[in-house]
Amino acid sequence: MRRLLNDGYEAVEEMLAGYCLAHSEHVYLLENDQRVVVSRHLSQEPRVRIIVGGGSGHEPLFLGYVGKDFADAAVIGNVNTSPSPEPCYQAVKAVDSGRGCLYLYGNYAGDVMNFDMGAELAAEDGIQVETVLVTDDVYSAKEVSERRGVAGDIIVFKVASGAAAQGYDLAKVKALAEKANSRTYSMGVALSSSTLPVTGEVIFEMADGEMEVGMGIHGEPGIERTALATADEVVEQLLSHILAEAKLAEGAEIHVLVNGLGGLPLMDQYISYRRVVEILEEEGFEIASSQVGNYATSMDMIGLSITIVDLDEEIKGLLAAPCDTPYWRQ
Amino acid sequence: MRRLLNDGYEAVEEMLAGYCLAHSEHVYLLENDQRVVVSRHLSQEPRVRIIVGGGSGHEPLFLGYVGKDFADAAVIGNVNTSPSPEPCYQAVKAVDSGRGCLYLYGNYAGDVMNFDMGAELAAEDGIQVETVLVTDDVYSAKEVSERRGVAGDIIVFKVASGAAAQGYDLAKVKALAEKANSRTYSMGVALSSSTLPVTGEVIFEMADGEMEVGMGIHGEPGIERTALATADEVVEQLLSHILAEAKLAEGAEIHVLVNGLGGLPLMDQYISYRRVVEILEEEGFEIASSQVGNYATSMDMIGLSITIVDLDEEIKGLLAAPCDTPYWRQ
Repeated sequence: MRRLLNDGYEAVEEMLAGYCLAHSEHVYLLENDQRVVVSRHLSQEPRVRIIVGGGSGHEPLFLGYVGKDFADAAVIGNVNTSPSPEPCYQAVKAVDSGRGCLYLYGNYAGDVMNFDMGAELAAEDGIQVETVLVTDDVYSAKEVSERRGVAGDIIVFKVASGAAAQGYDLAKVKALAEKANSRTYSMGVALSSSTLPVTGEVIFEMADGEMEVGMGIHGEPGIERTALATADEVVEQLLSHILAEAKLAEGAEIHVLVNGLGGLPLMDQYISYRRVVEILEEEGFEIASSQVGNYATSMDMIGLSITIVDLDEEIKGLLAAPCDTPYWRQ
Repeated sequence: MRRLLNDGYEAVEEMLAGYCLAHSEHVYLLENDQRVVVSRHLSQEPRVRIIVGGGSGHEPLFLGYVGKDFADAAVIGNVNTSPSPEPCYQAVKAVDSGRGCLYLYGNYAGDVMNFDMGAELAAEDGIQVETVLVTDDVYSAKEVSERRGVAGDIIVFKVASGAAAQGYDLAKVKALAEKANSRTYSMGVALSSSTLPVTGEVIFEMADGEMEVGMGIHGEPGIERTALATADEVVEQLLSHILAEAKLAEGAEIHVLVNGLGGLPLMDQYISYRRVVEILEEEGFEIASSQVGNYATSMDMIGLSITIVDLDEEIKGLLAAPCDTPYWRQ
């Protein structure tokens, strides 16, 4: 193992303790449920509250996006494991201001089951909770509704949070999150497995010099295991799949996210981004904004994903709206 | 190799192209020297200009800290290699506003030689250039003046940039940079080597399950190669060396930087930070501010460093002053 850990079973608790110490101006752990990270910047005026979450091991996703004018709370599961229903419910109790809450998370069966149970518990208290599942991973299933959520999570979170900050009601915030999701397309490549804290072992073996295009952030299978290609070739392959799905209009305005999966140097990410821009400009698209860096990782997994957002004026404005969190501040 | 690259010899140029595309609101490449990254936010009023730099492969160091009220330019060398004198000189020509420039970089022989030659060329043009070498790596030499610069670079850069933004003259900006350097103490641990783009090979072999406390960011030897310890044990070991050097006053106010070397998950960094805080609070020190994340890396090297800054009111104020760059914004 090449990790710095103590007891692997305590890794999530210890990480949360460290995170909340490091970012105490932004967040705190809910006293009665230590798996809920709550913003210190909940708006004074009642707003639709944005609650995100999922398994740990994708930092800075999810907790890194809790703060001012972004997510109001994050619910934290064990590594690669959905949070249980209780913290999903406690997050609602902690942040609801009478206008309802929106759960946002990647589309994984365990998360769906547990967040849905959290919503049921909240409903018994008379609090309305709606859900939008993020399904941006274009390679993960043919049917959009069956696709997994990956780095596009943060796009949907940002748009919905911006909408909530506008004072929109729950139905409108949900509709905007759904629109953002429907216009967000991602695909990744992995060159290694992540290492699980509890076992100290990789999830799967992958030889040096191999890659798997289309692999999910928990190691879900991709297209095929092949020899490592160049950065440019990998970008071309990922974009060909993404653009085939996105069916962008001629001259479409887009947002681009090149996301490192944890162990890939920034150098490689910027080299890849350079090729992304070349291709998208050759295709006549207009890059309105972009992000490069480790936004949604799989711990020490080496790889990256590319996300394209097909902007309209509304999504563009909400993506660009001010926010202040430890990992997205503008 | 587990990297996403094209021709290894083109890696730095391709990275710079991608970086300047991604952050075009902050920086551009100097037209007559493509190894100089220049801020788009040079102050209208004349100021002492801050020029940083060194070898590539430490991203976001150095280019990530060029922007508003921070470094005015970064000079970029090949991977783990000093920039040559010409771009050091061209950076001065590009940003000087008549009040002189301050070179800031980690203390490595190649950098010293080449930046000094850049300063001589500038002197022939009548531009005054002073230099402060960062020497924060407490384990790298017994004599402070012989120590290497590691993550503490960014502390010295920030303080000097804050001082320049105050309108101080070159002598005073230099004196503040020297003071910041003299109060900044770092030490690191590595669990793996980085991979060089040109060869596609690691610099040195390190077995899974080994670590080397005290190793430098280019793989300079540490104390000894031992079996991997827990996060808490590593933190305790690093802090014992740092605190022995820092000789902090009782109840001293400090800034803490837990810096990932590239391949270490944020999870591990926050787990480590948690223990850092425990120890420093047990010792009675007051943590005024802190940073956790990949601020000065060695590409895919797995490891971290801890930096402690012994604050006084002046350093504290300059560290906390507003700035806006891609990798440090407050």
